[in-house]
Amino acid sequence: MIKAISIDIDGTITYPNRRLHEKAVEAIRLAESLSIPVMLVTGNSACFAYAASILIGTSGPFIAEDGGVIGDRSNNRVFMGDMGDSMILWSELKKRYPNAEMSDTMKYGERRAGLVIKRTVPVEAVKAIIEELNLDLIAVDSGYAIHVKQPHVNKGEGIKKACQELGIFPKQVAHIGDGENDLDAFKVVGYRVAVAQAPEILKREADYVTSKPYGEGGAEGVIHILKNFGYLKI
Amino acid sequence: MIKAISIDIDGTITYPNRRLHEKAVEAIRLAESLSIPVMLVTGNSACFAYAASILIGTSGPFIAEDGGVIGDRSNNRVFMGDMGDSMILWSELKKRYPNAEMSDTMKYGERRAGLVIKRTVPVEAVKAIIEELNLDLIAVDSGYAIHVKQPHVNKGEGIKKACQELGIFPKQVAHIGDGENDLDAFKVVGYRVAVAQAPEILKREADYVTSKPYGEGGAEGVIHILKNFGYLKI
Repeated sequence: MIKAISIDIDGTITYPNRRLHEKAVEAIRLAESLSIPVMLVTGNSACFAYAASILIGTSGPFIAEDGGVIGDRSNNRVFMGDMGDSMILWSELKKRYPNAEMSDTMKYGERRAGLVIKRTVPVEAVKAIIEELNLDLIAVDSGYAIHVKQPHVNKGEGIKKACQELGIFPKQVAHIGDGENDLDAFKVVGYRVAVAQAPEILKREADYVTSKPYGEGGAEGVIHILKNFGYLKI
Repeated sequence: MIKAISIDIDGTITYPNRRLHEKAVEAIRLAESLSIPVMLVTGNSACFAYAASILIGTSGPFIAEDGGVIGDRSNNRVFMGDMGDSMILWSELKKRYPNAEMSDTMKYGERRAGLVIKRTVPVEAVKAIIEELNLDLIAVDSGYAIHVKQPHVNKGEGIKKACQELGIFPKQVAHIGDGENDLDAFKVVGYRVAVAQAPEILKREADYVTSKPYGEGGAEGVIHILKNFGYLKI
């Protein structure tokens, strides 16, 4: 039985320009009104996820930095990773590539569990330093930026931790997402929804693929879950 | 002529439970579509305001910490105050009142221009320390918490700084709010709207008072401004 919904933010409950989609907000509030807690899961900072949780009105814990931080509406946070090896990587990268730049989202120290680097350096160079220095890190090029984090930090592990806080099992969660990093979430949850514009690799693993893309697809996914598990009569 | 709208978040574009009101979001997006930049003005942290700006879709600078921080969508920030005297105050307060507690919103160092203290200590005690130690601070009890900041930090000064970034004059801004701290904004802008549930002291200074409260009132205020200044035909 599904007892909670975890859902990605960018591309899943938004328009392509990152604005919240009104239909997705409405569907999430409907789930909450039926006592199904919604957990936001995002690559954004904890503070960003906290604000989204307050403004949308989700009662479940949020999972930020792709699993690096679990937080709640009282601003309690659990950190699943740290910046130690990331700092060593940055130091070496900057020596070799003086033009290396951190992403705008790294400003002001609001990220605590990973490094985001602008694509002015090749991801291969970052990977080479990680291997040479034997750092406990992985680097992924998202197409927008290079994300560096500890291997155990991912959306799936984040959802597991959030489920402990909620007192439910990950198999009782339905997850909705649109990115390759949602595969880690798919691995631990009980039901999987991919939004229409998601890559094939994610759609292949989904129990349901929405017909609509972006926020309309996220809304469709939430409604589908509520109907499929009997919370909403058809 | 009004060229931009500045608008408070909590209570002005939300429901009483802090959820975004769909009508307020719709009205703000309408203003943006008519090329009127909207500036969010809030007591929340810069990171909260940044997230709200992205999720709602405002193009104007945001004013956070009640004027303490001005930011934009590229995460550039200007700090109008600092924490120096606040730290001295906190040190002395904690000596005298060991049960003194910072607000949840102070966790993780995301506030940079002021201190928010839980109401487990009387505001008079805070004020007394400020006077005794001759600190350049003022303390206000908002009813929810005690807010401490430098006297030059307020929504009005924040809007002035944001106007410099936009290349307009404060008199070309219309402001919408629902709190006593919106009085500082009213002092510098060219047109003033108070939301229905605002205190009398704010309504008295307003050019227009909405008939609806909370987010519906915020939406009404935006539409009123757009019509009043000819951006929207009646």
